[in-house]
Amino acid sequence: MDGARVEVFAPDGIGEIPAGTDLAVVAAPFVVEGDVVVVTSKVVSKAEGRVVAGDREQAIVDETVRVVARRGPTSIVETRLGVVMAAAGVDASNVAPGFLVLLPVDPDASARRIREGIAAATGHNVAVIVSDTAGRAWRHGQTDLALGVAGLHPLESFDGAVDSYGNPLAVTAPAVADELAGIAEVVTGKLGGRPLTVVRGLAGRVLPPTEHGPGARVLVREAGTDMFGLGTREAVTAAVAGHDQHLFGAPATVEDLLRALNACGLSARSRPDGVEVAASADARLSLLAFAHGWQVHAEQSGDSATTLVRLS
Amino acid sequence: MDGARVEVFAPDGIGEIPAGTDLAVVAAPFVVEGDVVVVTSKVVSKAEGRVVAGDREQAIVDETVRVVARRGPTSIVETRLGVVMAAAGVDASNVAPGFLVLLPVDPDASARRIREGIAAATGHNVAVIVSDTAGRAWRHGQTDLALGVAGLHPLESFDGAVDSYGNPLAVTAPAVADELAGIAEVVTGKLGGRPLTVVRGLAGRVLPPTEHGPGARVLVREAGTDMFGLGTREAVTAAVAGHDQHLFGAPATVEDLLRALNACGLSARSRPDGVEVAASADARLSLLAFAHGWQVHAEQSGDSATTLVRLS
Repeated sequence: MDGARVEVFAPDGIGEIPAGTDLAVVAAPFVVEGDVVVVTSKVVSKAEGRVVAGDREQAIVDETVRVVARRGPTSIVETRLGVVMAAAGVDASNVAPGFLVLLPVDPDASARRIREGIAAATGHNVAVIVSDTAGRAWRHGQTDLALGVAGLHPLESFDGAVDSYGNPLAVTAPAVADELAGIAEVVTGKLGGRPLTVVRGLAGRVLPPTEHGPGARVLVREAGTDMFGLGTREAVTAAVAGHDQHLFGAPATVEDLLRALNACGLSARSRPDGVEVAASADARLSLLAFAHGWQVHAEQSGDSATTLVRLS
Repeated sequence: MDGARVEVFAPDGIGEIPAGTDLAVVAAPFVVEGDVVVVTSKVVSKAEGRVVAGDREQAIVDETVRVVARRGPTSIVETRLGVVMAAAGVDASNVAPGFLVLLPVDPDASARRIREGIAAATGHNVAVIVSDTAGRAWRHGQTDLALGVAGLHPLESFDGAVDSYGNPLAVTAPAVADELAGIAEVVTGKLGGRPLTVVRGLAGRVLPPTEHGPGARVLVREAGTDMFGLGTREAVTAAVAGHDQHLFGAPATVEDLLRALNACGLSARSRPDGVEVAASADARLSLLAFAHGWQVHAEQSGDSATTLVRLS
């Protein structure tokens, strides 16, 4: 039968991975030319000695660049890698009690090392993904995603492509590395002691041996370009505090600003020198402007009208 | 070699799917007992006659329950299904110019119908996933996810499970249906005309023929329990407008409220009757309280101190 076909398998019997283990040697017996090898970040961390004794809460603080949202015991943070996940990827499961597994320091570099090691050991050109587990906005449950990638474009670009009717495609960049990490999670399971998965049948997507591609970093959206760079409460707190304006992104269009003002019952119109609001400048108007990358123009504002101008 | 293994294939030659097509009949020649069949929502919509001529902007408005975030031409919305995605899933690709594909009315029901149809046509017990493509917070690119599911638990629960060291597992619910939709996307590609993918090797996860499971609806997080139920700007706008308080979730803990107040430079302390802030009640304090599910207690507040109490 014609079509596209891949095979995904996770070998048993790999067992515990002590610090100093060469994961390329572990993977080598299972791969052939053109495979994609998915290794859990847990195992990469163990092999790289990123297991520490210590206090989980303190480790989370140490690994956190920025708190994105927090409710009670749950904190969603930006890690040093730029990846947003719960508890900064600090994990106390599948490790001896009292110990913690931290994320690999540079998972793209880890993926490159494993890829090069497999090539050296076997002569086979493969791609390597270092995977981890994360929750999502809007949806229950967790999926595995790519924390490190070598030898594969993490985002497959269809920008400019058209369908068979000549329409431009709405989806321009499937995150294939995340999708491959996901199927590895399904096949390995969380309890099976299978730290390694091989995806066979995607040789056409594996880059030449000398090209590692841009790495999983291209999957990370910078906070300032993200509409969800803060939780709902944290966005209001940041606006009230007057902090972190860059997290709200580039200045809003006039249309978007007018829409927000109208939602607050404020009558407003666009003028050549800015947006004029039929209200005196007050705290609420300042907050709205702040969150939209605009500000009150003090000289052109009075008791009955306020002019907002874009933050430069 | 021992281990876990699945095979994923997407047959060629299925061709265009006219309205009225029985997708179970289309899938039947490719499946065996225990398969998981992934069908794109695009094809389900076409088979179910959800292709309409019309204006894309108007169709998006019609399919939208709630705007989650909007910047310029991009709007992220909650669809009638509760799923958060760009443009309400209204798609103008892979359809004749001037026409639009709307999401299936009830993708869980579509999945059940296809599953039952396959059983009737072949005698094989399979699971069916109706997939669609969506962007994510924090990460570039899109992944496919499960819009409808029958015959499989969309969330595999490890709640209460322990690892080989006896530690509780941090990840309690892998969203396997989303991960399976993802690998189907990788195998089919966006341009290949392969609307159908079969995942073979997960028979242990396929439910008995009489059980369809809870459907993809269990993957949808209700907005009020989501820390990201509004974009950053929309959260500020909602607070200023005094709208949509439920989207900020259940009242914050005292600790979380104190943290937010402190971030705004406000000195506050917990008291038996609420949280006392060393400041007069002003618009900013009201907004902070609103976003955290608290409010100003007017009778116990004065010029130098304000008492906040939980919204009941």
